[in-house]
Amino acid sequence: MNDPVFLRACRGESVDRVPVWFMRQAGRSLPEYRALRGTGSILDAIADPALACEVTLQPVRRYGVDAAVLFSDIVVPYHAIDFGVDVVPGRGPVIAQPFRDASDLARLRDLTDADVAHVTQTVDLVVESLAANDTPLIGFAGAPFTVASYLVEGAPTRDFAVIKTLMHADPALFDRLLDRLVAITVAFLRAQVAHGARALQLFDSWAGSLTRDEYARFALPATQRVVEAVADLDVPTILFGVGTGELLTLMSSAGTSVMGIDWRVDLDEGRRRCAKPVQGNLDPARCLGGVELGVAAAREVLKRAGTESGYIFNLGHGVLPATDPEVLEAVVRVVHDEGMAGVR
Amino acid sequence: MNDPVFLRACRGESVDRVPVWFMRQAGRSLPEYRALRGTGSILDAIADPALACEVTLQPVRRYGVDAAVLFSDIVVPYHAIDFGVDVVPGRGPVIAQPFRDASDLARLRDLTDADVAHVTQTVDLVVESLAANDTPLIGFAGAPFTVASYLVEGAPTRDFAVIKTLMHADPALFDRLLDRLVAITVAFLRAQVAHGARALQLFDSWAGSLTRDEYARFALPATQRVVEAVADLDVPTILFGVGTGELLTLMSSAGTSVMGIDWRVDLDEGRRRCAKPVQGNLDPARCLGGVELGVAAAREVLKRAGTESGYIFNLGHGVLPATDPEVLEAVVRVVHDEGMAGVR
Repeated sequence: MNDPVFLRACRGESVDRVPVWFMRQAGRSLPEYRALRGTGSILDAIADPALACEVTLQPVRRYGVDAAVLFSDIVVPYHAIDFGVDVVPGRGPVIAQPFRDASDLARLRDLTDADVAHVTQTVDLVVESLAANDTPLIGFAGAPFTVASYLVEGAPTRDFAVIKTLMHADPALFDRLLDRLVAITVAFLRAQVAHGARALQLFDSWAGSLTRDEYARFALPATQRVVEAVADLDVPTILFGVGTGELLTLMSSAGTSVMGIDWRVDLDEGRRRCAKPVQGNLDPARCLGGVELGVAAAREVLKRAGTESGYIFNLGHGVLPATDPEVLEAVVRVVHDEGMAGVR
Repeated sequence: MNDPVFLRACRGESVDRVPVWFMRQAGRSLPEYRALRGTGSILDAIADPALACEVTLQPVRRYGVDAAVLFSDIVVPYHAIDFGVDVVPGRGPVIAQPFRDASDLARLRDLTDADVAHVTQTVDLVVESLAANDTPLIGFAGAPFTVASYLVEGAPTRDFAVIKTLMHADPALFDRLLDRLVAITVAFLRAQVAHGARALQLFDSWAGSLTRDEYARFALPATQRVVEAVADLDVPTILFGVGTGELLTLMSSAGTSVMGIDWRVDLDEGRRRCAKPVQGNLDPARCLGGVELGVAAAREVLKRAGTESGYIFNLGHGVLPATDPEVLEAVVRVVHDEGMAGVR
């Protein structure tokens, strides 16, 4: 019973309050983050363990959330192996030479501990700081399909035309690409847990662009392999994507402990489809209209969440940059005070 | 039995082949369109009846589709009443002074026939040209919620934060805004039918950004009123949005003859949810990999479509600008040859 409430909820165990954290809580909207970081590349900031540790801790201090999530990015391991990734402010990850053919497979070499030493140093620092309050740190990685979509498209897209053409035109090459990404993802996740991360989230952010058939053939198997390859670590795992209503039953079969769902699916319906603990699903846009509206929106989510255990409050996508931190502070309070109708 | 196959399918009547048209078939990807239009504003091109007629007819000639759709844009009526709309190439509709408060309601005056004389002149020209082959023309408009999101946000968005804040912070003002948009939309649709459009599509493109509760409260009632207000015209109506899997049963209750669905929902499942004729749902991204891949993708859609009547083949969203017209030509052939397993 002495495990942190976030970990207990991930396992569907009884809790004395609803745990809450926010995707993208580290960085972005916090003024103390902006003050600290200045104007350099976000990848440089992530590569500075003291800075990345501080940014990871800021929202824990300010909001009193029940878990920290590493200040990082899903492209970090690919930057670390010199695939040629940059994160352009206001645009997102851009790849100088996108993945195009079999010759690019060699650019996706295995990830070593040395490659991500800056990340594991950050994990060490964060874990040490969090020990006093026994707050767990969530490590994360991109799920193979979503990473592939970045590496193949080369820049943010709404259409995913290049990756979809690749998967259908040359499924064997696509499979070899995902094999490489599975190996890198597993190594990255294992390194984070080895240094003290106590839960793992996989972001399959763009899975919702696929048909069910495409997801089942081209995304699910690789995600399943990642989940299996970290199962022995015995940390809870979470799988999340946006616009995944049609995919939830399939995604749930990937085997993570928890399914993250966005606001498009009602939480009660999402839980029914996933048949396991769920995390979500406040629309981050509803945190932009001030404290009163944000709290009202959080209450709607709590109502749909019901009173069953196995629930973690979160947004249905990342914190929007324009979010007023006071709104998230108030949301944490209402979740802790009123979640599961004030369980005790 | 002599009604065009597209209209028969919209009504769920028996057909001798599966009808097909493509959202955004007019303009965009066609080289003959690019040659004709030059580099001016698309709103200027739409306002030129001879040009707009020709662009509307080009895909009918080239592809042999079963319906024409007007070369137009959902912001046209709002441009016509001088709300201050521009369509910025590569970006989309931009509003100089977005809708902000009750004082902006006066800028949304009733639409007169004179306001859209350029559109109805285009309709006249198109209908005259299509008469020989009895090809129906589809008129269209934006559904009130989607139009409101453009007018309130002021520019394309992924987050819809401003419109969502307005609807929750001041639902009474939001309702008054939608009242104005219902009146304008109905007038615009009626004008198109008065000049010979034989079917109407409502684009609620961004409905999929809403929760079910939000859709039911803030989008559905206005769409229902539009549908009711054109019911006496006795033309088939189609309602379409993207990412609407969770909303299909609600959207279907708006009362249109047909529901358009995107590729995220399997067509058989979509038909089950809608319980009426359906239109869709080939992922436009799958038309970017050449003829062979496009045809294979179309066959997958036809398989899901089954053999029941009440089906119109279309994409699951608009034609992407980079689409090779040869792919769409081949898709039309395979739909006509193999749709409903070659009905007869």
